[in-house]
Amino acid sequence: MQKIPVGILGATGMVGQQYIRLLANHPYFEVTHLAASPSSAGKTYRTALKNGWLVEGELPESVSELVVADVANVASAQGCVLVFSAFEMPEKEQIKSLENAYAAAGIAVFSNSSAHRSTPDVPMIVAEINPQHLDIIPSQQKRNGWDTGFVVVKPNCSLQSYLTPMYALMQAGYEIPKIMVTTMQAVSGAGYPGVPSLDMIDNVVPFIGGEEEKTEREPLKIFGEAKEGVFVPFAGLKISAHCNRVPVSDGHTACVSFAFGEKKANLDTIKKIWRDFRGVPQELDLPFAPMQPIIYHEEQNRPQPKHDRDADKAMAVSVGRLRPDSIFDFKFVALSHNTVRGAAGGGILNAELAYRKGLLTLT
Amino acid sequence: MQKIPVGILGATGMVGQQYIRLLANHPYFEVTHLAASPSSAGKTYRTALKNGWLVEGELPESVSELVVADVANVASAQGCVLVFSAFEMPEKEQIKSLENAYAAAGIAVFSNSSAHRSTPDVPMIVAEINPQHLDIIPSQQKRNGWDTGFVVVKPNCSLQSYLTPMYALMQAGYEIPKIMVTTMQAVSGAGYPGVPSLDMIDNVVPFIGGEEEKTEREPLKIFGEAKEGVFVPFAGLKISAHCNRVPVSDGHTACVSFAFGEKKANLDTIKKIWRDFRGVPQELDLPFAPMQPIIYHEEQNRPQPKHDRDADKAMAVSVGRLRPDSIFDFKFVALSHNTVRGAAGGGILNAELAYRKGLLTLT
Amino acid sequence: MQKIPVGILGATGMVGQQYIRLLANHPYFEVTHLAASPSSAGKTYRTALKNGWLVEGELPESVSELVVADVANVASAQGCVLVFSAFEMPEKEQIKSLENAYAAAGIAVFSNSSAHRSTPDVPMIVAEINPQHLDIIPSQQKRNGWDTGFVVVKPNCSLQSYLTPMYALMQAGYEIPKIMVTTMQAVSGAGYPGVPSLDMIDNVVPFIGGEEEKTEREPLKIFGEAKEGVFVPFAGLKISAHCNRVPVSDGHTACVSFAFGEKKANLDTIKKIWRDFRGVPQELDLPFAPMQPIIYHEEQNRPQPKHDRDADKAMAVSVGRLRPDSIFDFKFVALSHNTVRGAAGGGILNAELAYRKGLLTLT
Amino acid sequence: MQKIPVGILGATGMVGQQYIRLLANHPYFEVTHLAASPSSAGKTYRTALKNGWLVEGELPESVSELVVADVANVASAQGCVLVFSAFEMPEKEQIKSLENAYAAAGIAVFSNSSAHRSTPDVPMIVAEINPQHLDIIPSQQKRNGWDTGFVVVKPNCSLQSYLTPMYALMQAGYEIPKIMVTTMQAVSGAGYPGVPSLDMIDNVVPFIGGEEEKTEREPLKIFGEAKEGVFVPFAGLKISAHCNRVPVSDGHTACVSFAFGEKKANLDTIKKIWRDFRGVPQELDLPFAPMQPIIYHEEQNRPQPKHDRDADKAMAVSVGRLRPDSIFDFKFVALSHNTVRGAAGGGILNAELAYRKGLLTLT
Repeated sequence: MQKIPVGILGATGMVGQQYIRLLANHPYFEVTHLAASPSSAGKTYRTALKNGWLVEGELPESVSELVVADVANVASAQGCVLVFSAFEMPEKEQIKSLENAYAAAGIAVFSNSSAHRSTPDVPMIVAEINPQHLDIIPSQQKRNGWDTGFVVVKPNCSLQSYLTPMYALMQAGYEIPKIMVTTMQAVSGAGYPGVPSLDMIDNVVPFIGGEEEKTEREPLKIFGEAKEGVFVPFAGLKISAHCNRVPVSDGHTACVSFAFGEKKANLDTIKKIWRDFRGVPQELDLPFAPMQPIIYHEEQNRPQPKHDRDADKAMAVSVGRLRPDSIFDFKFVALSHNTVRGAAGGGILNAELAYRKGLLTLT
Repeated sequence: MQKIPVGILGATGMVGQQYIRLLANHPYFEVTHLAASPSSAGKTYRTALKNGWLVEGELPESVSELVVADVANVASAQGCVLVFSAFEMPEKEQIKSLENAYAAAGIAVFSNSSAHRSTPDVPMIVAEINPQHLDIIPSQQKRNGWDTGFVVVKPNCSLQSYLTPMYALMQAGYEIPKIMVTTMQAVSGAGYPGVPSLDMIDNVVPFIGGEEEKTEREPLKIFGEAKEGVFVPFAGLKISAHCNRVPVSDGHTACVSFAFGEKKANLDTIKKIWRDFRGVPQELDLPFAPMQPIIYHEEQNRPQPKHDRDADKAMAVSVGRLRPDSIFDFKFVALSHNTVRGAAGGGILNAELAYRKGLLTLT
Repeated sequence: MQKIPVGILGATGMVGQQYIRLLANHPYFEVTHLAASPSSAGKTYRTALKNGWLVEGELPESVSELVVADVANVASAQGCVLVFSAFEMPEKEQIKSLENAYAAAGIAVFSNSSAHRSTPDVPMIVAEINPQHLDIIPSQQKRNGWDTGFVVVKPNCSLQSYLTPMYALMQAGYEIPKIMVTTMQAVSGAGYPGVPSLDMIDNVVPFIGGEEEKTEREPLKIFGEAKEGVFVPFAGLKISAHCNRVPVSDGHTACVSFAFGEKKANLDTIKKIWRDFRGVPQELDLPFAPMQPIIYHEEQNRPQPKHDRDADKAMAVSVGRLRPDSIFDFKFVALSHNTVRGAAGGGILNAELAYRKGLLTLT
Repeated sequence: MQKIPVGILGATGMVGQQYIRLLANHPYFEVTHLAASPSSAGKTYRTALKNGWLVEGELPESVSELVVADVANVASAQGCVLVFSAFEMPEKEQIKSLENAYAAAGIAVFSNSSAHRSTPDVPMIVAEINPQHLDIIPSQQKRNGWDTGFVVVKPNCSLQSYLTPMYALMQAGYEIPKIMVTTMQAVSGAGYPGVPSLDMIDNVVPFIGGEEEKTEREPLKIFGEAKEGVFVPFAGLKISAHCNRVPVSDGHTACVSFAFGEKKANLDTIKKIWRDFRGVPQELDLPFAPMQPIIYHEEQNRPQPKHDRDADKAMAVSVGRLRPDSIFDFKFVALSHNTVRGAAGGGILNAELAYRKGLLTLT
């Protein structure tokens, strides 16, 4: 089979590197194009990595000598069927325009940026939760006058740990009107150089700019429905979030309390629903789909970032400590790998889904 | 003035050492007696410190050559008007009996242990919140047939950060029926050797045995009222807690969401109430009383353990990030030093209060 | 092929767990017997793990239901051709006697303990350096009156990082009379619970009991020669060591300065010798042999524990920063994984070597 | 007494903040002028602190409303008798010119920068070691045509821990021709934001740009002698250094091996020399002089950053673990606070010395 040529926008950053690492030997996709800021343009990828190779393992030989393009030079991505977008610019509007330019050039854009997350007809996908949101793409293309190009986004990494467990219960017929969550987030979420070590040695920082707002708002779009070509946010849920930065390299942990609606599940039922939960990625047996999206731990002190972030290729969500809550109904702890499941791995899974839905084709 | 002679039970442990450090040059009290487990008994304090001096500064000369007694040898404490109890034993009943034996011997016991916290006529004191609970002591003495001895306890360190801010609002006339709290607790809370470093390098442990139960239950006694010689827990409040261990040496941080009753304060009112709050320790100008019990920070990323745990002799509570909560009414971050305010410093403040109330006298 | 049945002595500890993890699916060996302290004896392995599964991945199903034997019950190991010994006892003489008892029972003992390291006819093996030292075994067996049993040890983990690079130069014909080394050692070297987190948050401990002595003495035996049935330590080398504990989970780093004898290699020659170095494990293509035992990094800030400890199944030594030394001739940085290369993985490699040399056979 | 008005150049950085913190209530000096980069110029100091107050305690009220000047605007410092220079610029030549401009304007410059360290007639002072080097100032002023202004520098923070102990022995009549040192340096040495937390969680970085060269070269100037108006480096000492960054906030630790010349001291003599050592700052009883410049610890696991960095106002050097070295004569561990003794506190001590030598006078 001929692989789909893909590009990485923002290839030198931490998430860009994760994309490159994870896409080595991918069965559907092949990285053929790398783009970054003007300061990297024209250099080989190896020399453009001014902070070095920051992720696991060694820089794959297959990309080390690719010449990096300027991300603003959309024409240079010709030949790519899709790009994974993980670049940064001072203004969100700049990112949005550039992502639009790639789409206008016929390229599918799978973005990690928050720029397009509130665009009403851009689907924000968690592959196990709302794969059907990809159906909006023809309408998105029509509105923009795009041919084969389109834009898909993934949500913020802070909510990846607890949203699938919550959805599994909703899908099983239980309403969940209230979720209160406190996150303890890893420093890799801020990229490199990111969080100064002086802030993380013997310390916790109880603030991450913009994170609580995203965590409270984005799930409503994910749980929403498309109506007349735009997503209408779900109205039946309120989320309250505290987001903290802790001295952990990878893996966001969340302490979650939630209330059921009238119909309430008991403890064993909840665990069973979580363990049995499978989504479209599992049905389609997508390469990056974890076999079991939600892993429940019976040990009283799990999940922990160090032990559980890498579960099932770092794509599974680990949960534990389900117990009654004295104010809401239940509380539990959830954990997922923020730069894999919550960033590059999640983006790849979305692209795999789009590929199998026929949205990505070699011309 | 002649100082009150005091003993430290559990003198070699981490909290015992904090008592010794903090009592050096105390205006009311003088450490004259040290007791620990049989393995330390008979040694000088310096040689009994098998793990060394674990707290700030150097071991005070004044105690380094005191010979350590066996904590089970109550008679050896003769001459002490009060003891600070911070010893450990396998069974809580053992601790309780031994604390009772000291009280029976005419000695006031200020305990950090959880053994007596649920004894109905043992007051659990946060000096700024329920100093009037000390009034139960004559009744406690009568019931036990004790003369000058009695037992007073302090609550768990996990709740010291947020309970005073909550109380300040209650005192100002606002009901607070619901509090949801997630703590990020320092390793010193588990003593020495305590938490293994393999669990704290690049990790968070979302479980501390017994901690959530204490955090949810103890405030109800503190806010309760004495009726017919026993404390009746406050019925108007529900607390739900998640307790986590994080790689921080000292300083417990709490993310708190709370609901008001019918009467609701606005953001500026709450801040003003917190800043203006003063308790009996401040009125009496007790040596260990922080001048301002609640320090509000306007910076959006404070309080932080590293910057704020030592505020006002490590006795003040630091709060910040007060903002509306989408489910309850408000949320904020609170922090206090767990081995000072939450342990030895809090115990000393309680003893100062008892002293000024006339409960401790030289014979 | 029928696999060799092996036992793990000290199976519940950290190194014991690493053995179990690494031996899952081993081509020569199969774990059929687990032994630990009396408190674990009689329990299934899963329930005997009172501190849980501490190493990577999940507890292998194949061993989780094995019933753990008392390590003092040598007869229970009947059926094992070899045991990997990683148990602890208060006295070294106790460990020595027990290891002897296993050998006397016809079982080959590959030990991680330091108990037998100074026994004159017990070979201390680094498989790439002194594989020929295994030739002493018939003599060892004869002296002890053992039949098929024998004892082999591996050296301390602190020297695994720099000793192979030093040996590679010696093998290439360069004398190295002086090595000065400062180590920065990971906490996993002290097992679990091991180093308290209070000592490792915002701190370095410049002392590890007994470590400097081992680091200075053990290489002399490894570089020594067997004469009349005992190893005579190498006399042509002096080592001086400073050993420190740093807040790193796995991976010992060493800063090394060394002097050549009269014949001196230049910088490029040294790098070439290191990169080209191969030993007997590589010639025999042993399962646990790293393809390239010494990996040289040209980046100026490598090797680093986080990036390099897992190189080539965590069995390769990573080195870098080779540069002239103003007092000796050269200095460099070396790193190896202490619980894999420096403990369980090194032990397995030694057993593989013995197997291929015909010292281990199914009866 | 009227205090000497002083300015801080680079006031918003980490070292600048330490100067401000340490100079609050100084008996000789009063901070009256703050300067920083153009982006801070014109703002009050409080608002110019874009990263907040990074050092201990709270921002002193006395400076919080001072308006920050552009550091390039030398005229704005008029009225200052001296400035502490801790600003950064892309090119060392720029720093040098600007420091010269302040000196030309009649202001004494005490610099933390490395820009002027190799200028032959600029003294590099450790107040306990070479206070007599200040005698070169008239000659420096004459060469430059400066009136009351001059430039004094302090050495790199990496050598502050072990240089005074080495000097104490030299002063007592022992030659020390060889020192081999491996440092484990705190992240505060790189300022803020400085070292990324991704490099310091579960890691060590065995490289600090330029640090080893400074550590090997600067002591030779400090031990040198002024001849014909320039300092001739000391020729009787060779230093070899490995410099590492470790996950510690403050406090550089050094593992040191050294050789004596022909005359050798024994272990007890060395300890006595260290404990008895006093320098000119102690004789003059300077405000920032530690009472005992070298504190020797008998505990086998000291000094440690967490316990010892703050010894005697963070101005004392802590040493321990003196023991014979198998290659050189002795080895030991040394520690000092890098941003106090090794930066701002050391600079202040130098200025106090100059003041008492009559080099700083109110006009």
